[in-house]
Amino acid sequence: MHNLLYAQGGGMTAVINASAAGVIEAATASGRFDAVLAARRGIVGLLAESLVDCAGIDLTRLAATPGGVFGSCRFSLPPEAAQPALYDRLFDVLAAHQIGAFLYNGGNGSLEVTAQLSQAARRRGYPLVCVGVPKTIDNDIEGSDCCPGYGSAAKYLATSMMESGCDLAAMASHTTGRVFVMEVMGRNVGWLAAATALAAREADDVPHIVLVPEAPVDEGTLLARADAVISRLGYCAITVAEGIRHVDGSLVRASTKDPMGHIRLGGAGQVVAEWVGESLGCHHHYASPDYLQRAAHHWVSATDHAQALAVGRAAVAFALNGQDGVVAAIRRLRNDPYTWDIVAVDAAAVANLERRLPHEFLAADGLGISTAGRDYIAPLIVGELPIMTAGGLPVHYRLDRATLPRRLPLYRGWAEERINARGD
Amino acid sequence: MHNLLYAQGGGMTAVINASAAGVIEAATASGRFDAVLAARRGIVGLLAESLVDCAGIDLTRLAATPGGVFGSCRFSLPPEAAQPALYDRLFDVLAAHQIGAFLYNGGNGSLEVTAQLSQAARRRGYPLVCVGVPKTIDNDIEGSDCCPGYGSAAKYLATSMMESGCDLAAMASHTTGRVFVMEVMGRNVGWLAAATALAAREADDVPHIVLVPEAPVDEGTLLARADAVISRLGYCAITVAEGIRHVDGSLVRASTKDPMGHIRLGGAGQVVAEWVGESLGCHHHYASPDYLQRAAHHWVSATDHAQALAVGRAAVAFALNGQDGVVAAIRRLRNDPYTWDIVAVDAAAVANLERRLPHEFLAADGLGISTAGRDYIAPLIVGELPIMTAGGLPVHYRLDRATLPRRLPLYRGWAEERINARGD
Repeated sequence: MHNLLYAQGGGMTAVINASAAGVIEAATASGRFDAVLAARRGIVGLLAESLVDCAGIDLTRLAATPGGVFGSCRFSLPPEAAQPALYDRLFDVLAAHQIGAFLYNGGNGSLEVTAQLSQAARRRGYPLVCVGVPKTIDNDIEGSDCCPGYGSAAKYLATSMMESGCDLAAMASHTTGRVFVMEVMGRNVGWLAAATALAAREADDVPHIVLVPEAPVDEGTLLARADAVISRLGYCAITVAEGIRHVDGSLVRASTKDPMGHIRLGGAGQVVAEWVGESLGCHHHYASPDYLQRAAHHWVSATDHAQALAVGRAAVAFALNGQDGVVAAIRRLRNDPYTWDIVAVDAAAVANLERRLPHEFLAADGLGISTAGRDYIAPLIVGELPIMTAGGLPVHYRLDRATLPRRLPLYRGWAEERINARGD
Repeated sequence: MHNLLYAQGGGMTAVINASAAGVIEAATASGRFDAVLAARRGIVGLLAESLVDCAGIDLTRLAATPGGVFGSCRFSLPPEAAQPALYDRLFDVLAAHQIGAFLYNGGNGSLEVTAQLSQAARRRGYPLVCVGVPKTIDNDIEGSDCCPGYGSAAKYLATSMMESGCDLAAMASHTTGRVFVMEVMGRNVGWLAAATALAAREADDVPHIVLVPEAPVDEGTLLARADAVISRLGYCAITVAEGIRHVDGSLVRASTKDPMGHIRLGGAGQVVAEWVGESLGCHHHYASPDYLQRAAHHWVSATDHAQALAVGRAAVAFALNGQDGVVAAIRRLRNDPYTWDIVAVDAAAVANLERRLPHEFLAADGLGISTAGRDYIAPLIVGELPIMTAGGLPVHYRLDRATLPRRLPLYRGWAEERINARGD
């Protein structure tokens, strides 16, 4: 099969590099590839012929590094009929570097690219096997019981909520009350918000309310619940997914005037904190961990990390087996003890779908997560890994090699400015 | 000396309970106290006669719990001349519970209370020794080289910036550019913001810019620097302390209109992210870890934790030694290897001062931290501790005992509503 090409697409996670390490390790160990290459900046790097050789990379350190060391992109491939020259370029680069296997590590958008490339190769008769390696903190890929990246972000957010709860309890005030909101990622799905429900081990533990995009926010119900919690405890902690909506379907957003007079859209967490706080006459605070939640390798889930490695290794096995156009998906075998394996799922069938929290994972009142939901998430955050540090801070892998010499002219054509932008 | 009373005041940290454990352990081990008591909600709990007996508390688990398990308050004592009955109440409770030593664990405000109580006891001839146990994530107590709580928040924020940098590097875009801002606590002082500078080990590592209250923000200089960094890297990471100011002295704040039409003040981080992003035509994101940064015991600094324990133990030693009205301050003996000890410093002399970043800790251009500043902070974040977990989440101590039976009538008088509010 000559060479294998690995690439990273979409938003980053704390464990996508563990998948990279799994791919490189398994592909090298197979002895079936002359070289294991990686594209800089995902599919864009393939178009730009920006490739590196992965031989000799310190895989232990790579697997302990958040972000994607090869660089990523958010780049959708237009249909081949619309941009045939773009596809010509893709296959020119693949051929020039004798690439027979393409493994794309990403979310729904990247799986779509994987399926497109697979179909284009078949149409052309180019011998290419394309395998998707799933990755997303959003946990929104259909066909995989969970997604590498989710468990670690979930663990980080549940821990953060739990720790903030200790702080809140100490500062509780029965005279004024306190409202704390943590806004988490999730434009369309509430999987990350739902994970914070695991912080609650006993009645009245934080979070007291979890708002997800799947359950429209009824202001009256929310306010009544917050009021009751504050009356009892002196504080109330609320998790808010960034994409929550009002009952009329509109996004919960603040309109903001910046110093230059422009109107901006603010975050749902800030809106909920201020609205509940003002309505109940309470102090209010809100946190927005933003990128921190998807990069927190220092508190990675050992289960998530193991799954990230495993999907990388399994994707290589599928490629070697000629299983073109599939995704290395995680299958849950048992819940207690939690056991799982990796299966091949058709990429085209699941790409660009979006897996939302099922109705049975939501509490009946729409303000929390059901026992079934908690039971689903619980095993995914289990386990800690030792973290390599120097001077009290993590030690990360830095890509230590130059891009391979070009074998083709610079790309010219559709989106050339973006494709040829310096990416290293 | 009969009984010792410990209390927690002001904002919380990840290690204040380690100081509590140090106090309880040393006081118990001394054999010189009949009982070690703690007040619920700081000095308010003393006034309310809301006390617990600390016998048998699991000190290992206590020391591994963020927040303050006994509860805290933000409560300034008025001068005795203004509220003599309030002071009568304080000494009634002290006498009723035979308290001969009062150890107050807090920041500048709590040290002021410590000094006030010490002076009031002397005026009355009540046999009380008062010792301050320093605590603040802000690191703004004069007379102590550093403060327990700071090192752990510093480690958490520097790590978070470093990890976010991995994510940013992967998503770098040379076509549009990306700006990421992390807003950290610090209304008047930039110690926490400064700590994030430790994330940068090599040239061009994040954070590229650190804005602190001690250096007014010159918009032109800031924008030019951000532009240069983005041209080079495709992204720019900025740490913003919440209390940064314009050159004219005004706070950097957004004016916001909420859904009900009220104008609100937004955060400095959001303003900087949006302003730099818009000005340079870049994507922009901002994070606000808020309470997470002061509660993140899962990534505590072992050095900070050891110092928190040590100031608690030393405060007991000072009390036993009759050193009234002092603070157990940390003294730096050497930088490399970092060594320190605990000394007694006059509480009245340091209370209510505010230690700001010295000029020599700032970079000449006001956009970063000098080598001297980094060298000062570096040893405080060193070391990790094993974290006790269950199901992938930390295990924290929960106060497992009832308040002691009252020996006095309910407090009636000035601020009675606040003092008698239910605090458990």
